[in-house]
Amino acid sequence: MRDVYHEELDSIGATLIEMSGLVASALNQATTAIMNADLQLAEKVIAADDQVDALQKALDARALDLLARQQPVAGDLRTIITSLRMSADLERMGDLARHVAKVARLRYPEIAIPEELRQTVAEMGRIGEELAHKTGEIIDGRDVEAARLLEAEDDAMDRLHRALFSALLHEGTPYPVETAIDVTLVGRYYERFADHAVSVARRMIFLVTGDY
Amino acid sequence: MRDVYHEELDSIGATLIEMSGLVASALNQATTAIMNADLQLAEKVIAADDQVDALQKALDARALDLLARQQPVAGDLRTIITSLRMSADLERMGDLARHVAKVARLRYPEIAIPEELRQTVAEMGRIGEELAHKTGEIIDGRDVEAARLLEAEDDAMDRLHRALFSALLHEGTPYPVETAIDVTLVGRYYERFADHAVSVARRMIFLVTGDY
Repeated sequence: MRDVYHEELDSIGATLIEMSGLVASALNQATTAIMNADLQLAEKVIAADDQVDALQKALDARALDLLARQQPVAGDLRTIITSLRMSADLERMGDLARHVAKVARLRYPEIAIPEELRQTVAEMGRIGEELAHKTGEIIDGRDVEAARLLEAEDDAMDRLHRALFSALLHEGTPYPVETAIDVTLVGRYYERFADHAVSVARRMIFLVTGDY
Repeated sequence: MRDVYHEELDSIGATLIEMSGLVASALNQATTAIMNADLQLAEKVIAADDQVDALQKALDARALDLLARQQPVAGDLRTIITSLRMSADLERMGDLARHVAKVARLRYPEIAIPEELRQTVAEMGRIGEELAHKTGEIIDGRDVEAARLLEAEDDAMDRLHRALFSALLHEGTPYPVETAIDVTLVGRYYERFADHAVSVARRMIFLVTGDY
């Protein structure tokens, strides 16, 4: 039977995986909301982010408490510190999904993203969601190989982000400034969401291998 | 005479203060660079960010080493964990100053910010720089009162950020999409820079009072 200390360590890992699932789902729904001017779904995403924030707070409190009471050394110490950092990344990913949903809400009943850019934004949403799910798997399996592969998927996100800017700057009738602002911000939110997923993956590589 | 342990704790605080000064100066120079299409200054800011990153890495290594070797409890433990979080905020502020400089470089020899928006951007730069300097003072003095006041200054940044969007959306001849993209991103960088300064201030309040 495992002791209470190791049960608490495991529960911190389980919370991180739960956060990964929640932010993946939040980004999926935020993308649907902004593609369809779905106000109800946007409101749902915005409200649901409180849950991610609460999980982070609870996780951080437990981690700090473990540090103070158990004075862990070496591997366990590194695991706890890394968990604190991963929870900060995941919490921020939740904020960014909420930001996408807020743009959807702001422009309702209009659709913030022009029709011909929607495929690119949908693809950014799909990749972001997948990256978030993978962070959960990487944390669950302490999977360094999957963590290394995740960077390649972030490259795909960066390519889509650049494609979005190119499309905004197309020849012909220019987009309204409001559209340029919305698309620029939304593109940035997806890109940063992916950056934080990469950050989680890198922290796992560091935790397992000691390489940064 | 203080022991080595407390000297190391002090040196972590000194590094945070040094980082505050560097990111304040980086934002000042990045703002000058983007106002004047000053390529040399932009390149200088971009290159100088490596120093902030190196300070963060060294600080984090020292903090983790202290945690592992000294197994600090209560106040010292909280100080070290808070230092790790502040160093992450300050490192990100350095990135954001570098992002502003990169927009300056991208548009050189053009000036990325239209003339009539420059006063607002200059003011955002001034406030951001001041916030960064204040984080240094707050860390140095563990100054909860100054930390609380810092939020009011961030409100000024948010107002300027909204004013920037309003100006972009003015009546009359619309801005080119490229300008809308640049101003949107730059505005966001300043706003996020200020958010991280507020985060440092809040962490000090938490460290000293235990309130979050």
